[in-house]
Amino acid sequence: MTKKKLNIGLVGAGFMGRTHSNAFRQVGQFFGGEYEPVLKAIATRNAKGAADFAANWGYESSESDWRKLIERKDIDLIDIASPNDTHAEIAIAAAEAGKMVMCEKPLGRNAAEAEKMVAAVEAAGVANMVWYNYRRVPAVTLAKQMIDEGRLGRIFHYRAKFLQDWTISADVPQGGMGTWRLDASVAGSGVTGDLLAHCIDTALWLNGGIDSVTAATETFVKQRSHAVSGKVEEVKIDDASAFLARFENGSLATFEATRYARGHKALYTLEINGEKGSIAWDLHDLHRLQFFDHGDDGHLRGWRSIHITDGDHPYMSHWWVPGLQIGYEHSFIHQAADFLGGLASGTPAAPTFRDALRTDYVTDAVLASARSGRWEAVKG
Amino acid sequence: MTKKKLNIGLVGAGFMGRTHSNAFRQVGQFFGGEYEPVLKAIATRNAKGAADFAANWGYESSESDWRKLIERKDIDLIDIASPNDTHAEIAIAAAEAGKMVMCEKPLGRNAAEAEKMVAAVEAAGVANMVWYNYRRVPAVTLAKQMIDEGRLGRIFHYRAKFLQDWTISADVPQGGMGTWRLDASVAGSGVTGDLLAHCIDTALWLNGGIDSVTAATETFVKQRSHAVSGKVEEVKIDDASAFLARFENGSLATFEATRYARGHKALYTLEINGEKGSIAWDLHDLHRLQFFDHGDDGHLRGWRSIHITDGDHPYMSHWWVPGLQIGYEHSFIHQAADFLGGLASGTPAAPTFRDALRTDYVTDAVLASARSGRWEAVKG
Amino acid sequence: MTKKKLNIGLVGAGFMGRTHSNAFRQVGQFFGGEYEPVLKAIATRNAKGAADFAANWGYESSESDWRKLIERKDIDLIDIASPNDTHAEIAIAAAEAGKMVMCEKPLGRNAAEAEKMVAAVEAAGVANMVWYNYRRVPAVTLAKQMIDEGRLGRIFHYRAKFLQDWTISADVPQGGMGTWRLDASVAGSGVTGDLLAHCIDTALWLNGGIDSVTAATETFVKQRSHAVSGKVEEVKIDDASAFLARFENGSLATFEATRYARGHKALYTLEINGEKGSIAWDLHDLHRLQFFDHGDDGHLRGWRSIHITDGDHPYMSHWWVPGLQIGYEHSFIHQAADFLGGLASGTPAAPTFRDALRTDYVTDAVLASARSGRWEAVKG
Amino acid sequence: MTKKKLNIGLVGAGFMGRTHSNAFRQVGQFFGGEYEPVLKAIATRNAKGAADFAANWGYESSESDWRKLIERKDIDLIDIASPNDTHAEIAIAAAEAGKMVMCEKPLGRNAAEAEKMVAAVEAAGVANMVWYNYRRVPAVTLAKQMIDEGRLGRIFHYRAKFLQDWTISADVPQGGMGTWRLDASVAGSGVTGDLLAHCIDTALWLNGGIDSVTAATETFVKQRSHAVSGKVEEVKIDDASAFLARFENGSLATFEATRYARGHKALYTLEINGEKGSIAWDLHDLHRLQFFDHGDDGHLRGWRSIHITDGDHPYMSHWWVPGLQIGYEHSFIHQAADFLGGLASGTPAAPTFRDALRTDYVTDAVLASARSGRWEAVKG
Repeated sequence: MTKKKLNIGLVGAGFMGRTHSNAFRQVGQFFGGEYEPVLKAIATRNAKGAADFAANWGYESSESDWRKLIERKDIDLIDIASPNDTHAEIAIAAAEAGKMVMCEKPLGRNAAEAEKMVAAVEAAGVANMVWYNYRRVPAVTLAKQMIDEGRLGRIFHYRAKFLQDWTISADVPQGGMGTWRLDASVAGSGVTGDLLAHCIDTALWLNGGIDSVTAATETFVKQRSHAVSGKVEEVKIDDASAFLARFENGSLATFEATRYARGHKALYTLEINGEKGSIAWDLHDLHRLQFFDHGDDGHLRGWRSIHITDGDHPYMSHWWVPGLQIGYEHSFIHQAADFLGGLASGTPAAPTFRDALRTDYVTDAVLASARSGRWEAVKG
Repeated sequence: MTKKKLNIGLVGAGFMGRTHSNAFRQVGQFFGGEYEPVLKAIATRNAKGAADFAANWGYESSESDWRKLIERKDIDLIDIASPNDTHAEIAIAAAEAGKMVMCEKPLGRNAAEAEKMVAAVEAAGVANMVWYNYRRVPAVTLAKQMIDEGRLGRIFHYRAKFLQDWTISADVPQGGMGTWRLDASVAGSGVTGDLLAHCIDTALWLNGGIDSVTAATETFVKQRSHAVSGKVEEVKIDDASAFLARFENGSLATFEATRYARGHKALYTLEINGEKGSIAWDLHDLHRLQFFDHGDDGHLRGWRSIHITDGDHPYMSHWWVPGLQIGYEHSFIHQAADFLGGLASGTPAAPTFRDALRTDYVTDAVLASARSGRWEAVKG
Repeated sequence: MTKKKLNIGLVGAGFMGRTHSNAFRQVGQFFGGEYEPVLKAIATRNAKGAADFAANWGYESSESDWRKLIERKDIDLIDIASPNDTHAEIAIAAAEAGKMVMCEKPLGRNAAEAEKMVAAVEAAGVANMVWYNYRRVPAVTLAKQMIDEGRLGRIFHYRAKFLQDWTISADVPQGGMGTWRLDASVAGSGVTGDLLAHCIDTALWLNGGIDSVTAATETFVKQRSHAVSGKVEEVKIDDASAFLARFENGSLATFEATRYARGHKALYTLEINGEKGSIAWDLHDLHRLQFFDHGDDGHLRGWRSIHITDGDHPYMSHWWVPGLQIGYEHSFIHQAADFLGGLASGTPAAPTFRDALRTDYVTDAVLASARSGRWEAVKG
Repeated sequence: MTKKKLNIGLVGAGFMGRTHSNAFRQVGQFFGGEYEPVLKAIATRNAKGAADFAANWGYESSESDWRKLIERKDIDLIDIASPNDTHAEIAIAAAEAGKMVMCEKPLGRNAAEAEKMVAAVEAAGVANMVWYNYRRVPAVTLAKQMIDEGRLGRIFHYRAKFLQDWTISADVPQGGMGTWRLDASVAGSGVTGDLLAHCIDTALWLNGGIDSVTAATETFVKQRSHAVSGKVEEVKIDDASAFLARFENGSLATFEATRYARGHKALYTLEINGEKGSIAWDLHDLHRLQFFDHGDDGHLRGWRSIHITDGDHPYMSHWWVPGLQIGYEHSFIHQAADFLGGLASGTPAAPTFRDALRTDYVTDAVLASARSGRWEAVKG
């Protein structure tokens, strides 16, 4: 039972580089499986940074140019964890070189970029996936399972928010290593592509397609100094973004994301109201799922707080014992496990690039509506 | 220190007739004051129902036609707790007869009706108030106090929801005594005028004026039998209503109301995010206010759950001892106390008819936007 | 359907005088019934205070000596809301005069007093009840109903706490009007008779008899000035009291009460663990009952937060509409309703004096164990 | 900056073998440091099990007898994760061989065993630590920091519970691999040594020494079949254990543990009430700390829910970004980091064997009191 080695070439040494590396390092111990990821090489622009990252995480080698990874014969998979403006170029080059491609979300800075990426991986016929990790938080996975079991019935409402507060200070710069998410040319958009993209991916998975949206965006701090140039420049991202949506299943939805909600660090919340029951979840207590079952005895109905730590909860039999919770990073480990399982089974794990393109269609429509002041249909 | 008697003539013997009567019966014991409300007469269409209601609540007499109350010399104040389609006619007649007027919310079925009501009470110079009772939930009153103390700083976001689930069944009829809120001709609108009106009144009070809105409404059950006619008829109210708003102070807001959120009976929630702090409240635990203070020591910051039962919380010194909570009906008692206090001091208690008209301007804009698919400016 | 009048003579004008008066004033409007309580007279030592209280609450007359109430022919029922050291004398005198007697808890300062009170009301054959109001919080009543329905199965554990923080400051005096609960000669004991008595009454009702206890008490502030004498005197009450108990049904229990739990005003909590399910409740959110049902589908089990505001919850059909909560004082209104209902039906409402004596047996054993350092059997 | 290698020999391949191995595997990536743990060998009785465990976790070799590990020159540290009845023998042999020793809790099956273990490591002068991991949950570490900062003031109360429900069924066997905790000869005691030991270790750390205790234990299921022998035998462990305690600082405490609290999987809770503030924490939401600060403005006081995910919270700067939580296993990683840091600095990380012996003194006193029915003084 020797395992098949899967040689990883990671691009990017930031926050997401760490979560992906950790996932590849841990997936074997907890999920076993046919494939064994090998941390072959890491590329990031700064050669010293690349070497240090490699030393810390156990990569065998490092490069300061991602193109080197693609040229190397000993790399099977390119994992993209670098800023949004690099996704398309790297993914397309990797696919053309016949590498498998994993890409941090959002797929492209916009749907036009993402469409080219989908075309490239499909033309090359290479395995591909986008790291929308929240699908693999066990509570969210259980929500999907419950919907598929028919426990909610006809859906009336979906609502999601992603609230942060880290850019309230006008002293936070835009651009550069830690704050490229505030630079529209790098990120594509602000919270719409960053935070709402997560909400939308989960929603499309749980509740189906979105027909149309009406949106509003706001930029509260109009100018910030640029971390690289040092110059005070106009802020072109959306600091906050909210929209109303109509789903194909007839449900009515509200979505909102912001980096100006004082007191919330990463409060992704979602709630679904169906005829037979409702479900709610939030990222600040990610190991709990709230469930209201209208089928309970009338005088004993109530919202149940399901503590997602039992062996019959998704993914949890691989971890500890009941009552003991896991954390944020585990969603990436689960995603790695599912990707590797997909390679072994021949059934690709979702979301593929094509799946993730749908999210970019929605975020494009949101941004278009914010400009037009009208309802915009979602492509696709 | 003999008290001044204030003779009340109540119109309506339903849910709101009960809460108002209870308020008038109890305000004296807990709030004292210069004025003593006297339950003089109750009018409702059904003579037996009126007599029974009078006997139960201690009204001295009963009538089956509200016009009788207005004709009576021994009535100082007409309190309107009957369905929305009667508000304007009764209020205008009462004002023209020189009576003070209190009116259950919403003021009119639309702003056109409400404007006439404002004109009538202002022309007559009579005291007037609308029962937007949630302003007088102590936690909400404390929120207002905190905002006025400057504890939130510049406001970025406001969000409010009012979620119910009582009309999900297609067997619920429209029209008639218990379900006139589903009959558009009586109610004016569905959840927009019923539930969102509460959210909007509080928002205007806490966060100032609304510039413009974009909205969506939905009617999930298209036909219902009419409780009076027995015929199956098209449902013309909005079962659900959501909108995005821009406030005059630059904040971005989301609002939503529905009667199709399984598991929520009367979940009115509100949250305000400011530069210095945030506040959240909900009606299902109305004696708690959540507060995040960014001024706390960094490593000890957290959302505080303030249990609003102490003597230094609004209204609470009039009730029991710390730790012991009050309920829903007390908000009406507080409103009665403030109205009577306003008579004594000469400074009218809010919201007056004119204040409440602003809410009707917003609900009109919401319904207009839901029809037009565009942003609509709020009049006023 | 003229109602039978029940003339009330209240003794005591403090906090409990207010809650009882409010209960008698409101019970008719919300619960109807055969009997109508009439606020006939109030007695308290201070004549001015008695008159003011009468004026505020609508008592027809006032007295400065409770003996006058007992002499009066127009009084049917003596309601004792004065400090603990007066309970026995008043109750016995009232019973001997053939009056019905209601008494604020605890029944006596100790079981010896309480036994005499029981003997007196039983000899006189007069209706009697003790105001252990928490049995009538709808959530607690529902807990009793669920246990009787067999939803918990064999009971393993009971735990209760009553936590306050109002006497932490050494500046709080002992004795006098507002602080007689710190004067052992008046109160009988400290938190044992005051707070634990509540916990024990509920426990005996929900979980049956207690066999034996081992206890510890503590007095954190050893000396306090006396509010009447002005002298600094030794504090003889227990500031805190905790005990372990074995119930007749084999369950193991922990109880604790204190006035030194910073941050808790009146946090009475209880939890019962049974083979089939568990229940938890607390007074700070008294309109919620937590329920864990082991019979739920395995992967969907969780603690349900039942919002006790529906018409099929105990007492709630008499109040408002689903989602709208009631408060602390309502438990007294319910108790008054049940007492009056008991008069009408001939089946006395619990807890009678005899029922309440059992609590005094337990508190006696707790205090004895705290002195002896050994397990003490509970009499009865 | 080559790291010093620390060669680990693990004994035990169960639940704790996994958490320790995971800690050693991950500590380097997240905490860096001078020492690098090397997974040298694992020993467990079953040779196949040992080999599989080694393969999964990356141990270089495996043994079926722990004595082999002690004989090996290439092992620096023996880590004991085998059942309680093996702790003393292994630890003493390891110390005598000059190995560092880490031991899973409780140190011994009783204090007599533990004293010998302390003597052995101190005589040998080898580094030693016991895996009381909950001290390293960041919220608990923050609690300690807050107490040391003086934020609670004089302490009045401590209360802790550890509630589980996994042995309610009479079908659960005693003895054997998965259920040795129910076999008194292996485990030493039931919940007292298993669960209360955790509560006591934390309490001694946070609140100082315990003077005396009074306790009660209960065995609800009197007989169970033995997993090894297959015979039905008397159950000799305590299924539940509760005690009252007096601390050296004058505070009064309650402790309780059980495996019969339906609905709770691993609900370790603790609360401390001080003059200036209170703190509460529970393991089911381990990334939150509740804090009440009496120093807050009076009308804005409330329990704060501190979400322990910021960089200025203990250990958290090594993980992700604010808002993103870690889980149970991380407490072991932190403990490994602190142990390694202690080696580097020369200041041993707590709890050492000597520290952990104090917990065994308390559990001995608890079991003695449960037998004697009297208060028992705690040795030490």
